[in-house]
Formats: sequence, C-alpha cells, structure tokens
Amino acid sequence: MRDLLIEAAFELFGEQGFDGTTIDDIVGRAGVGRRSFFRYFPSKEDVVFPDHERCLEELKTFLRAPGEGVDPVERACEATLLVARMYAERPDRSLLRYRLTRDVPALRDHELTVIRRYERALAGYLRDAFAFRPDGALQADIVAAAATAAHNHALRSWLRSGASGDAVASANAALTLVREGWGRPAPDPEDYVVLVTRSRAPIGHVLQHVEHALTRIALDSERPNP
Amino acid sequence: MRDLLIEAAFELFGEQGFDGTTIDDIVGRAGVGRRSFFRYFPSKEDVVFPDHERCLEELKTFLRAPGEGVDPVERACEATLLVARMYAERPDRSLLRYRLTRDVPALRDHELTVIRRYERALAGYLRDAFAFRPDGALQADIVAAAATAAHNHALRSWLRSGASGDAVASANAALTLVREGWGRPAPDPEDYVVLVTRSRAPIGHVLQHVEHALTRIALDSERPNP
Repeated sequence: MRDLLIEAAFELFGEQGFDGTTIDDIVGRAGVGRRSFFRYFPSKEDVVFPDHERCLEELKTFLRAPGEGVDPVERACEATLLVARMYAERPDRSLLRYRLTRDVPALRDHELTVIRRYERALAGYLRDAFAFRPDGALQADIVAAAATAAHNHALRSWLRSGASGDAVASANAALTLVREGWGRPAPDPEDYVVLVTRSRAPIGHVLQHVEHALTRIALDSERPNP
Repeated sequence: MRDLLIEAAFELFGEQGFDGTTIDDIVGRAGVGRRSFFRYFPSKEDVVFPDHERCLEELKTFLRAPGEGVDPVERACEATLLVARMYAERPDRSLLRYRLTRDVPALRDHELTVIRRYERALAGYLRDAFAFRPDGALQADIVAAAATAAHNHALRSWLRSGASGDAVASANAALTLVREGWGRPAPDPEDYVVLVTRSRAPIGHVLQHVEHALTRIALDSERPNP
C-alpha cells in the first residue's frame, strides 16, 4: 500500500510537478482511499522523502552498536554513507527529488529539516564519544556539520551529473577531508611520522629526536603481535 | 514604523506566545495599519528575525571587500562573528527568540533556512577563494559548515546561560577549532616546521631533509626585509 502510494506520487510529480499534483490525484492513481494516504504520510511533502525515516533509524542503530576501539570520526563518516546508499538505491527518485527541491521552496525547507535530523544524530553520537574531551561537545557539532556538508557536496555533484558514477564512493572520497581534519590517523604498517618543531630549535637536537622516533617505530613494527 | 512593529511584536510574543499573537494584535499594539505590517514583513515568522537581512548584507559586504593576503578561513570566521554581534546587541530579543524557536516548529524551520543562507554566503566566498585548489569547492562547503556549527554551538551555550558573558568572544573561541583544522597557520617569528614522512623511509634520508628545511628557514629569517 505504502509503496503503491510512493510509486503513484513520483509518477505524478514527474508528469505534472509537485504543486500541480494533489493528494486526490495520488490516491486516485494508486487506487486507494484518501485516508490511506494520511495513514502513511503526514503531508504531501513527506511522500517526496519516503525513505528518510527508515534511513535515520538505520543510522542511529549503526551508531548505537558497540564499537570498541573504533575511531568515532570514522564511524560517523560510515554512518553518513548509509544516507548516500539510500539515494543510490533509487537514482530515478533521487533525481526527480533533486529537481523538485530546487523548484519548490516548501520541499527545500523540508529537506533542510531532514538533513538537520541526520546531523543531530551524528552530533549526539559524537558528543558521547568525545565526552572526555574538554571541548567535546563543540568538536562533535563541528565534525557532524563537516561530515554532513561533505556528504551533501558529493551527493549534489552526483545528482547534477544525472546520477552517473558511484554516489557512495564519491561521498566516501569527500569524507576523506573530514577524516583527515578530525579523525584519528589509521594504524598502518606504512604509517607516518609527524614532527612539529620550532624552527629556531637547535638543529642537532631536532635531528636527534627524529632519529629516536623513527627508530622506535621501526622496533615496534618488527615486534610480533601479542 | 518598522521598529515600532518589532517592539510591539516582541512584547506580545513574550506575553502571550507566538501562536497566541495575531498580526492584528501586533498592529493594534503598535498603533499602525495592517498593511504597514506587510510592507516590512512577509509573514509573522519574519518579524521574529528582524535583523537577519541586514546582517546577511553586512556579512556579504564584509566578504566582498578586498583582502589581499588574508587567510580566507580567518576571514570567513570573522564574518561569522558579525552574526554573533547581532545577537549580542539585543540579548533580550535573542533570549525570547531562543525560547520561541524551541517551542514553535515553524520558527525552528524558519531559523534553519536563515542559518542556511549565512552558510551559503560563507561557502560562496570560500569557493572563490579556494578556486585554485583541486577540491576547493568541497573544502569551501566543509569549512562553511564547520564555521557555522562552531558559531551556533557558542551562541546556543550563551543563550542557555541566559545571555551571560560575551557572546562574540565565545563564538570567536569556538571558531579557533575551525581555524586550527582548516586555516593557514599565522606567520610567526617562532614558526614551526612540520615534517610528514613514512616511518619506513630511510632514516638518514629523512634527517637530511629536516636539516635542509631548518637551515633554509634559518637563512630566510635572517634575511633583512625588502
């Protein structure tokens, strides 16, 4: 029933636009009663975003799952990809929705509140994960906003290209900037050493420290795993 | 006239809430005709955010001003502070608005679109400034979102505290995380050298590079200014 309504609504929106389609049109095309529509959707706007509630629940479930030792920023980025995956599942609907949200201010506003709910779910998770940091709540809000922006940027490019290419891979690539800016560096046998030093520190002293650090890592990586 | 209407509206919203106040109530209290209201405000929602249009224009003007050699991230952060300054100018109104936006979904939605417009203005500026970078547009979106989130975080804390303390200073402090994550490091006679190297790179080779870099900086800083 719900799927019938969505299918009918997207057909009609495609044919005659959002404003030109009434709820009566939709229930007529779907062959169901008007009351059925409101059982599933509070408003005509909501049928344009039929999978967001499910996706938001998936995202929250994903973030609630135990994840000892996982970098919270990495996890938030992976959660964000669930949204990209939802868009990629039905590129036809995503493209039509993109067109509709550009043309209809009410839908654009609706989309903003939807995006805001994802961002808040991410921020809530990160606030818990960063609770031990002095500026944890602030960092959580910043990372959640950055991840959402990176995701949306990639998704918009994908939609503008007519949904060609892999939306999830693009979003994942865009999120690299968030991981680099805020995430914990991944442990890697080819890991990097970062040295920060005052340029006026005695050169010999600095070199000694670098040598020491590099030697220690070399020893660590040769040590067998426990 | 416009100020009279705002004053009357905020009085009434404080006394009887947003939903409990009609446009007729507002024009009655202000002692003006109903048509005057719509000359200044498209809707009752807009009178709750009376200074945003002006502030948005100020922000755009600020970002358009020539700024050779200024770090674009720093500039975007400073522009964001114009918004904090607007809130701080009328703490009484900001507090009432905070209460109203928490209680009235229509106002919360309105605020989201307002915030989105600031964020887009910042992103537009940063896209131009980062045009030469390969991922410039993506970085612009991320930094704009991060700056907006940092600003909003500080502002919310300030409002929750009953508008005690300095909103602009708090926002500025919150933006430090954005500057640190994305800005250009400030030039400083005690500047730093950052070395990133694979830990498996030959140690002698790495040390040579470090020595070379430090020596070059030492020579540069001893050179007299042109």
